[in-house]
This record gives sequence, C-alpha cells and structure tokens, in this order.
Amino acid sequence: MKHSAEIISVGTELLLGNITNTDARDISIMLSELGINVFYHTVVGDNPERLKDVVAIAKKRADIIITTGGLGPTCDDLTKQTLAEAFGLKLIYDEQEAETMRQYFKTRLHANRPITQNNYQQVYLPEGCTVFHNTCGTAPGCAFEAQGVHVLMLPGPPRECMTMFRLSAMPYLQKLSGDEIISHNLHIFGMGESSVEDRLRSRMLELQNPTLAPYAKDGEVRLRVTAKAASADEAEALCRPVIEEVRGILGSLIYGVDTDSLENTAYGLLKKAGKTLAAAESCTGGLLAKRITDIPGASSVFLGSAVTYASGAKTALVGVSPATLAAHGAVSAEVAREMASGARRTFGSDLGIGITGLVGPDGDGSDTPVGTVFIALDAEGTIYCRGVHLGTDRQRGRTMAVHHAFDMIRRYLTGLEIE
Amino acid sequence: MKHSAEIISVGTELLLGNITNTDARDISIMLSELGINVFYHTVVGDNPERLKDVVAIAKKRADIIITTGGLGPTCDDLTKQTLAEAFGLKLIYDEQEAETMRQYFKTRLHANRPITQNNYQQVYLPEGCTVFHNTCGTAPGCAFEAQGVHVLMLPGPPRECMTMFRLSAMPYLQKLSGDEIISHNLHIFGMGESSVEDRLRSRMLELQNPTLAPYAKDGEVRLRVTAKAASADEAEALCRPVIEEVRGILGSLIYGVDTDSLENTAYGLLKKAGKTLAAAESCTGGLLAKRITDIPGASSVFLGSAVTYASGAKTALVGVSPATLAAHGAVSAEVAREMASGARRTFGSDLGIGITGLVGPDGDGSDTPVGTVFIALDAEGTIYCRGVHLGTDRQRGRTMAVHHAFDMIRRYLTGLEIE
Repeated sequence: MKHSAEIISVGTELLLGNITNTDARDISIMLSELGINVFYHTVVGDNPERLKDVVAIAKKRADIIITTGGLGPTCDDLTKQTLAEAFGLKLIYDEQEAETMRQYFKTRLHANRPITQNNYQQVYLPEGCTVFHNTCGTAPGCAFEAQGVHVLMLPGPPRECMTMFRLSAMPYLQKLSGDEIISHNLHIFGMGESSVEDRLRSRMLELQNPTLAPYAKDGEVRLRVTAKAASADEAEALCRPVIEEVRGILGSLIYGVDTDSLENTAYGLLKKAGKTLAAAESCTGGLLAKRITDIPGASSVFLGSAVTYASGAKTALVGVSPATLAAHGAVSAEVAREMASGARRTFGSDLGIGITGLVGPDGDGSDTPVGTVFIALDAEGTIYCRGVHLGTDRQRGRTMAVHHAFDMIRRYLTGLEIE
Repeated sequence: MKHSAEIISVGTELLLGNITNTDARDISIMLSELGINVFYHTVVGDNPERLKDVVAIAKKRADIIITTGGLGPTCDDLTKQTLAEAFGLKLIYDEQEAETMRQYFKTRLHANRPITQNNYQQVYLPEGCTVFHNTCGTAPGCAFEAQGVHVLMLPGPPRECMTMFRLSAMPYLQKLSGDEIISHNLHIFGMGESSVEDRLRSRMLELQNPTLAPYAKDGEVRLRVTAKAASADEAEALCRPVIEEVRGILGSLIYGVDTDSLENTAYGLLKKAGKTLAAAESCTGGLLAKRITDIPGASSVFLGSAVTYASGAKTALVGVSPATLAAHGAVSAEVAREMASGARRTFGSDLGIGITGLVGPDGDGSDTPVGTVFIALDAEGTIYCRGVHLGTDRQRGRTMAVHHAFDMIRRYLTGLEIE
C-alpha cells in the first residue's frame, strides 16, 4: 500500500515569517527517498482550536501525519495534548524520559538551571506510543498508530527535528512499508536540467524500480535513483546497474554520487592527492574561499585567496602585469591566467585559481557583456582557462563562477578534459 | 474589521523538498506589517483535485487567500483555472497582457524564441479582476473579490512573487483595510533578543498603536514598529516618538532603521566618508569579502581581502611577523592587529580589518577554546581590537565574526566607542 503523508508545522513564528519552514522541506526530501508521497504541508500557529481543526482535516486526507514544533515546555506548546485528544489517547508520565531529561540538565550547559514543573510537561506522552529520544535537546518526540493513521511528533528546532527524524522516525517509517528503500543522488555539473531530462527521458518513463528523477539545485543538476526491495542489499542491487547505465550516458558530467557539493569533491581530491590550493578572486569577491573554508579541516589543503577587487590589488598581491591589464582589460582570459599563476606563486600552492568577470547587475561602460567571467587554473605549471556567460543575476553569476572553478580542479585531479 | 489570511503555495517541487517555501515566509512578513493576521500556510502539489479541496477549506476559514505558483505556461499550471472555478468566475483573454507578453519576448533574451499557444494561456484571467503586471517574468498575477473573499494570485519564482507583491498586492491590500500602515525596522547589534525584550517589556505590553515587536535574524536582533492611521503621515507621526524613545533606551546598539544589513550600513558610511576598506581574513575565510561584494558597486569602497588561511600566508601577504605568530599563536589579539595593519598597508586602504580565530567544530589541540575570535580594525593608524567567544557552531561563529567587523567600522565612522 502506498502511504500518503501530511506535514503539519506548528508555530506562530512561522506565520509571522520570522523563521523559514526548513523542517517541512527536509522531511519531504527524506519521505520522497522512502517512497512516501507527501500531498500537503500545513502551517498553523500556537493555537489549540486551529490546530485541532487542522488535525481533523489531515486525518481525512493522509494516513501519515508528521508534526513539527510545539513540544517544548512553555504554555504555547500544545501539540502533544491536541493530537492525543484528537485521537482519543491519554497522556502518561514517562519516568524514563524524565530521568533522561534530568541527566541532560546535569551534563549539558544547564548545571545551574533548575528543572521547572513546565519541563516535566514534556515527558507526558500519549499512552502506548513509541518514544523518540531527543539527542540534541530536552523535548522527546513520539509516534503512535490510531484510527488507521500513523502520527509522528517531532520538535521544531531544525537540528533537533532532523536528527530525530534520521535516528527514530526513519526506522519507524521504514517498518511501515515493509520494504527497504535505498536512494542515491548523482551530482551533475556542466549540463542543464532540461538537457539531462532530454537524454534520459525514455529511461525515466520506463523505469519503475528503481525510479529516476532529476532536479535542479543551486546551479547544479541532481538525479535521484530510488529502489525498493525486501532487503537493503536487494535494493542496492537494483540501483547499481541503473547508476552504471546513467554513468554511461552522462560520463564525466557526473562529479559524484551521494557527495555534498563540488567544493567537497574538490577538497576530497586535493586531500587524497596531497596537493594544496590557493586563489585570486575578483568578481567572486571571496566566495570561493568562503565555500571551501565552510568545510571543517579545509586548512589541510587550502592556503588562502587574494581577493583583489581593485585593479591595483591584482598587481600588488598576485603580480598581474599592468601591461596585461591595459592591453586586455581586467575582465579577460589573460588577466585570469596571470591571477591563477600569481596565486600559486604568492601562496606557494600546487594549484592556483584565478577568477575575473563582470557579474552585474550593471555593465561597466565597456563592450563586455554583463555575465562574462573567466576562470583559470594553473595546475602545477600548466594553465587552463574557461570563458563563460553566466547571465545578469549577480548572485547566480558568482555562484556559477565558483562552481566552474571547483569543477576544473576535480577534472584536473581525475585526468579529465578541463577547458 | 481585522482580516485573516491563508497563503496557499502550489507546486509539487515544494512537496518533494526540492525548493524551500520562502514566498510564504516573505509574504507573511509583509502581511504582518500590514496588520493582517496569517492563520494558515498550505502547500499543495500541481494537482487540480487537491488544489480544489484546499481552496474549499480556505474559503471557510480566511477572508484573504493568497496563492503563489502555478501561473506558468505548462499544463501543470492550474491555479487560475481552479480558483476561478471555485469562485464561479470565467477566464477571459486579456489583450493588453498579451501585448505586454509579446513585448517582453521581443526585448528580453527571448528574441529568437517563438511565443507558443501555451504562453497565451497565461493571459486568460478571471473576469473583472485587477491585473497585477509581472515586471520580472511573463505570467501576470491578479486579484478579485467574490463570495466575501479576496483572492490574490502571484507567480511562484521568489523574485517575481515578491516584486509583484510589493508593486501590486501591497497597495491592493492597503486599500482593503482603509487604514494606512507604516512599519519601521530598527536593526540592533551587540545585544541578544531576550535582553532587548527585558529592557523594553513594559512598553511592548503597553503600546497598542504603534506596536513594538522584536525578532532575531541571522545573529542580529530587529525591532518592528508598526502604526496604523487614516493617512501615511499620521501613521508616520505615531511611529516617530516611539522610535525616539527606543533610541533613548538602546542608544548606539541600534545601527540602522530600515537598512538591509550591517555590511550595507558599513558600505554606506564608507562611501559617504570617501574612505576605502581592505581586510585580512583567517577563520572567516573570505566571508567578509563575500558579504561586502554582494553589494553591487562595492568596488567604490572595497579594495580587497587577503584570505590568509595558512599561517605562512599571513606573513607572505600581509606581513604578520613570524615572531608574533610564534609568541602569541595565530589566534591572538596581536596577530589580529598585525593583520589589520598589514591589510591596510598591502592594499593601500584607509581602513583595514584583521580577523583570526578558531571557529570549530573541533579545537586545534591548544588551550584556545573553540569559538575564540579576535577582530581588529586599523582605522587610519589607530588599532582597535575585540576578543569574543562565538560558540562552537562553525557557520554561526563565522557570521558573527564578520558582523563584529562591520559593526566596528560603523562605530568608527560615526564616532562611537569601538572596543
């Protein structure tokens, strides 16, 4: 039986726009990987009457209800009471969770904070429920089945919510389907979503298990391969030939499977090869450096970046020749190449990246079209350069330019064509 | 009469978790400023039956329904048809919007793309509606009143949606209330949300018009002052004394009113003073440079940043003395100060920022606690330094460190105490 889910997020802050509903998005991604359809997201405030109405509607149209938020210790937190009532269940004091909470207060940063009566509200849970421990906070979650509906309640703070989802809700939901579900994400750079779809359309329509679904994310394209079987091994075995088939079609456009990002891929390859990286950035203004240093441990491969926004700084920091700047202009392949080499020399790295371009929204008065960007890689003495047109959206242009730089690095380190 | 709104977002991508529902969040913020209660957000896929059901529910519990998405040219885009049907209205071909679309295709990047019959679907609009022009795309939005409910339909892509909201939906909704509503946002840095609340609690409870509401965003605190009156001038006049009163209480912790961000404030002050800025960044890895160069035109004040992630680069690029590094370690006030001065010297700027710290998640084996960051400003020869503890969350620590740097710049340029 194919399940259908509704996610109900509880919190007035969501309705005021003070926070973004990332929980509903992230749970949806996981449910989609589990093969569970999500037909509705609902957001409702900390108001028991309206929450009651919303639950009454959800009971009629979904057989899995997942709530987020409203499990905390304040008088606003009414999710458990309201849901238990809606399904005719009593709330029962859970001594084991009370003890867990006492331990949490003792060992974390709360040594001096007393446990109030309100905190104990959190450990009243629906009779007969499966308790979901909260490994990042104090409010436990839970799940129960009643009136033909599975109800799962998770805390609102994203870290607590998603950790509990992975550790407790995921296994609970997997048991429901009886099947094991395995999903793999193929990360693609260098081809748009519609072209990927064109190449794979007939297979996407034919395939039932595993399924094949492309989606665009942050200027990249991803392909999700999801298989269902009686065991994880069997599901894995169903995925494998399809992944190989897609690899055959898209080749080196696939930069990774189940990896995080282009920068993580580049970082991993640099680390494995024992090579270091430095950069000189103009139009991306430090974004390349920012992205690779988002990774804890980046210092093992990344030496630094000269953000040479002013033309003079290109000469002062990474030795771009004033003659080259005068002859070709700051936005040119020649300057990008000198920046890449200069970065390598200045920082003493194995690989150097140079990025210069005009990312808009406005032109600079010259003939150079907005969106023109040159990305150069000096790889241990050989210089490669890409010239691209990235459109007039400033943030997108900057993001794509840095994608290209990391893509050139991974292509160099895996022996692929670069330019 | 106090209106109550429901936002219905239409799109299967939202239910798959492929995109985040920022439209619902951003519209909620605007509605809250207009004094309109939002009681529900609903997300539904590109499915006419389920959309119809969702609209039937919304009609009963809201007197303003705002939809986002599903106005495009493909067969998935069913919002207008479904809503018109739900309220018993016909769709009528709008020749003026058709002409606007033809012009759009001609002048934008679409010169060679033919207008298909599908595109013309977009200009069939509910009879008697107010048309909302789309200044960033081709699908027009609209609004109508029927059966006691105001329905507003906006496109899904965030830029199109929010631009149309500001230009067309906002004035439409303001007319409904009869009142003019004026809102101002006070931006605060250097004090937590709960401390701000503590200081203002009694006034927050007393004040009815304007209202006073604090909220936290990206490591800053904001205070929203919202007044309602028969005219904009009167509403303005109601806000003014409250803003002055809050200024009296929070003083220079308020860095701006209705400004975008700390970097915009620093940028504006630098530009006004005709001063230039450069930086040397270690733990923030280019984030300061990235944030100021997010601003189009940043090149008028920002010369660049030396992202000196490796210790050697601190010496090579901005001349930090090896003796200082050896004596105090890379994470020290002394190194931050030399980085600030070195940035100023290397780039030839008026102001130089130096940032060094340990942002985690893991320690470096030394006694330095994770989260220790030093931010120094060399302001035309005088050096100021802040040492702060920013916790173990890597991204938050990096963001806060850059907040501090921009705060020090704005304090220097407005003659306030800096350290």
